[in-house]
Amino acid sequence: MIPVNKQRVADLIAGLAKFGKTDAGITRLAYTSTDKAAQMWLLKEIEYMNLEVREDVLGNLFIRKPGLDPNQPPVACGSHLDTVIHGGAYDGMCGVVGALEAIHMLEDETLRRSIEVIVFRAEESSRFGFATIGSKLITGKARPDKFADAARKDDISFKEAVKEWGGNLAEYEKAVLKPGAYKCFAEMHIEQGKVLEETGHQIGIVHNIAAPTRFKLHIKGMADHSGATPMGFRKDALVSASKMVLAIETAAIREKDHGTVATVGIVEVDPGSINVVPGRVTLWVDLRGVDTESIGRTLKEIRQAAQGTARTDGVEIEEEMLTSDAPVALDEKLAAQSEAICKEQKKSFLHMNSGAGHDAMHMPAICPTTMLFIPCRGGISHNPEEYAKNEDICAGIEVLAEILKREAK
Amino acid sequence: MIPVNKQRVADLIAGLAKFGKTDAGITRLAYTSTDKAAQMWLLKEIEYMNLEVREDVLGNLFIRKPGLDPNQPPVACGSHLDTVIHGGAYDGMCGVVGALEAIHMLEDETLRRSIEVIVFRAEESSRFGFATIGSKLITGKARPDKFADAARKDDISFKEAVKEWGGNLAEYEKAVLKPGAYKCFAEMHIEQGKVLEETGHQIGIVHNIAAPTRFKLHIKGMADHSGATPMGFRKDALVSASKMVLAIETAAIREKDHGTVATVGIVEVDPGSINVVPGRVTLWVDLRGVDTESIGRTLKEIRQAAQGTARTDGVEIEEEMLTSDAPVALDEKLAAQSEAICKEQKKSFLHMNSGAGHDAMHMPAICPTTMLFIPCRGGISHNPEEYAKNEDICAGIEVLAEILKREAK
Repeated sequence: MIPVNKQRVADLIAGLAKFGKTDAGITRLAYTSTDKAAQMWLLKEIEYMNLEVREDVLGNLFIRKPGLDPNQPPVACGSHLDTVIHGGAYDGMCGVVGALEAIHMLEDETLRRSIEVIVFRAEESSRFGFATIGSKLITGKARPDKFADAARKDDISFKEAVKEWGGNLAEYEKAVLKPGAYKCFAEMHIEQGKVLEETGHQIGIVHNIAAPTRFKLHIKGMADHSGATPMGFRKDALVSASKMVLAIETAAIREKDHGTVATVGIVEVDPGSINVVPGRVTLWVDLRGVDTESIGRTLKEIRQAAQGTARTDGVEIEEEMLTSDAPVALDEKLAAQSEAICKEQKKSFLHMNSGAGHDAMHMPAICPTTMLFIPCRGGISHNPEEYAKNEDICAGIEVLAEILKREAK
Repeated sequence: MIPVNKQRVADLIAGLAKFGKTDAGITRLAYTSTDKAAQMWLLKEIEYMNLEVREDVLGNLFIRKPGLDPNQPPVACGSHLDTVIHGGAYDGMCGVVGALEAIHMLEDETLRRSIEVIVFRAEESSRFGFATIGSKLITGKARPDKFADAARKDDISFKEAVKEWGGNLAEYEKAVLKPGAYKCFAEMHIEQGKVLEETGHQIGIVHNIAAPTRFKLHIKGMADHSGATPMGFRKDALVSASKMVLAIETAAIREKDHGTVATVGIVEVDPGSINVVPGRVTLWVDLRGVDTESIGRTLKEIRQAAQGTARTDGVEIEEEMLTSDAPVALDEKLAAQSEAICKEQKKSFLHMNSGAGHDAMHMPAICPTTMLFIPCRGGISHNPEEYAKNEDICAGIEVLAEILKREAK
C-alpha cells in the first residue's frame, strides 16, 4: 500500500473550503450552485486518477475504482459535501477526501472487488428540514413524497432543487439500490463531540447511531398592535413559544444520562415586526438519542408541556412530525476488524456511539456498515470553528484504506 | 360645508387596499414600489380636485388646497400610507383619505389659510426598525445618521431606500420644517385598542401619546452540533433568549396599571438550522407607556434580567438602544375645541391617551397638534382583521373637517 499523502489531503480539503466561504464560515447548502461548483472542482482535481464517475437521478455521485471482477458487489465508502449554514470545512469533506485518498493508497494493490466512493447529496437538513435525504432514498428507507415539497421560507422545494440540479425526482426508483448492492460500506467522519479529544484517542469505532426525531410546533396566538394592546389582553405566540423552548430543554436535561438531547434550532415569527405582538410562531425541534425509550419519554414530556401551555396561555399548539428515525446498530464484525487494524497500526481507539446522524445510518438496509470517527477540536462542528488536524485525518484514512483493502481482496 | 361623501371615502380606502394585498393581509412597506404605486394611484384619483402637490427629498408628500392668504401658515392634517407586514387597510389610510375628504367638504367655504394634507413616509417601523421616520426628520426630532444604515436582514438600508424612491438623504435639511410652519396639525386615526368600541363612543380625543423605547438584545452563546453536544455542554443562545422573552413580559405585567407594555416582535436566530444549537439570537424589543417613571422601572428590570441570565447561562447579552422617545402631550386648546365640535355635532366622545405612536407625536415641535381616534373592530390593528366601519370613519371626518374649517378661517 502506498503511504498516505498528507499534502494532497490538505489541498483537497482546503480547495473544497473555498466553495461557499463567507466571513461567517462556509455555507454550502445541498443542491445549490455552490454545492455543484464544489463537486465539479473536486471531479476536475481527481480527473487524472481515471476513475469511473456516475450520478443518479437524485444527484448522488458514485466514483468507482474498478476491481478485477466486475460481477462482485463493490466495497463502498464516502460521505457528503454539503454544509449547514455558517458551517465548517471538515464535516462530510473528511469522509469524501479520505475515501478518495484511500483509493490512491490502494493503487499498487490488486483487488478483486471494485471500490466506490459515494458522495451523498443533502446529508445536512439545513435546506429542507430533513437530513440524509440522498442516502435515505437510495436505500429505500424513505419515499420521495415525504420530502418533495419540503422548503425553507423563501426557498424552492426539494423537488424543484433536484430538478435545478439536473436530476428527476419522479424517476427516483432508478436510484434505489438493492440489498447486497455493496459488499459493505464504511464512512469516516469527524466525531462532532469532545470525547476522542479529551480522552486522547485517535480513532472512534462507532457501534450505534442516535436517531433524530424532528418536528415542528406551530403556535397560534393573536397578532395585535404592540403599543395599543394592554398586557392582559394579549395572546402572544412568542411568549408561549419561549415557554416551549424552555420546556424542551428541561425535558432533555431530565434524560441526559441516557444520552438524549433536544434542540430548537429554527424560530419563525409571524408577522415578525417590532410593533406587532407575534400572532404565530413555528419552532423546529430536533430530538436525538440512542435509547428509544428515553426518546419516547422526552417526546411525551414535550407534548404534555405543549398541552399545558396551550391551556394556560389560551393559544393553539399543533405538532407536525417531520421525521422519526430509530437508532441504528452498525456491523459488529466490521467494528472488530477496525479494532484489529488499529492495534496493528498502533493507533489508539475507543468504542463509542454517534450522537449525530450520518448517511451510514441508512446503509445497513443494503449492506454491513461501519463508521470511523476522528477527533475534532473542542468537539465543535456545524460552526466556522470546526477543525480537524491533518495528522488525525490521515490516521483515519490509514485505517479506512486498510478496511477497504481487506474487504475488496 | 358639503356633507361627507361616504361612497368616495369607501372607494378610496378600498382602492388603496389593493396595493400590497396578499392572502395574509396587506404588506406595503415604506419606500417600496408597492408604497409608490399606492401613492401614484391616490394622486391620480384626486387629480380632478386640482390641489397643489409637492414631495420633499425624504419622500413625504404635501397636498395643498390653497387659501386666500398664501402668507399665513397653513393648517395641516394627514397620516401615512405604509403598513406593517401582514397589516390591514385602515391604519394610516383613514387619516389620509379622511383629510382629503375633509378638503372636499370645505370646497364651498372661503378660507383664509391653505390646508395641507401630509402623507408622512415610513410611519411603521416594519422595514427599518424605526417608527415615524418621515415626521421625526421634518420636525427636527432626529437627524438622518440615526437611521441611514438601518435595515432588516436581506433588505436595503434606509438611505438606499430613500434613493430608490427618488429622494436624497444627504439633502435632508431641505425637508426640515421651521417651528410655526403650520398653524396647527390634526391627525385622525383608528384607535388600535378596544376602548371606544367597548364603551360605545364615536370619537376619542387624544391628550397624550405613549413613547416607544426600542432596543435589541444580542445574545451570544455557542453554536454546536445539535446531536453530538450533550445537554450539560451547551450555551444555547435561544434558551437564554427565551428566558429574556418571558422576563420582558413579566416586567411589563408588573407595570400594567401604569399602561406600560413590552413586546418582542422579531427574533433572529443564527445560524437558524434544525441541526445546530443556536449560537446567537437577537431580540427586538418594543417598550411603551405614557408614564416615564414606569417605563424606566420596566427597562431597569429587563436589564437586571439580562445580567442575571448572562451570568447563570454563561452567555453574553448586549443591549443596543434603537430609540427612546419621551411621551408627548398634545395641545389642550385643540382638544377642548374638538370636545365642543363633538357636542355640537351630537357625537359621543371620550378623552383618552394613545398607546401607539403616531406621526402626530413629533408635530408639537413645530405647531399645536391634536389627534382624533375612531373605533376599530375588536381593537385589532396591524393585522389582516383590522377594520373600521365606514360610518365611524365618516363621523371622524365630520369632526376633522370642522376643526380644519375653524383653524383655516
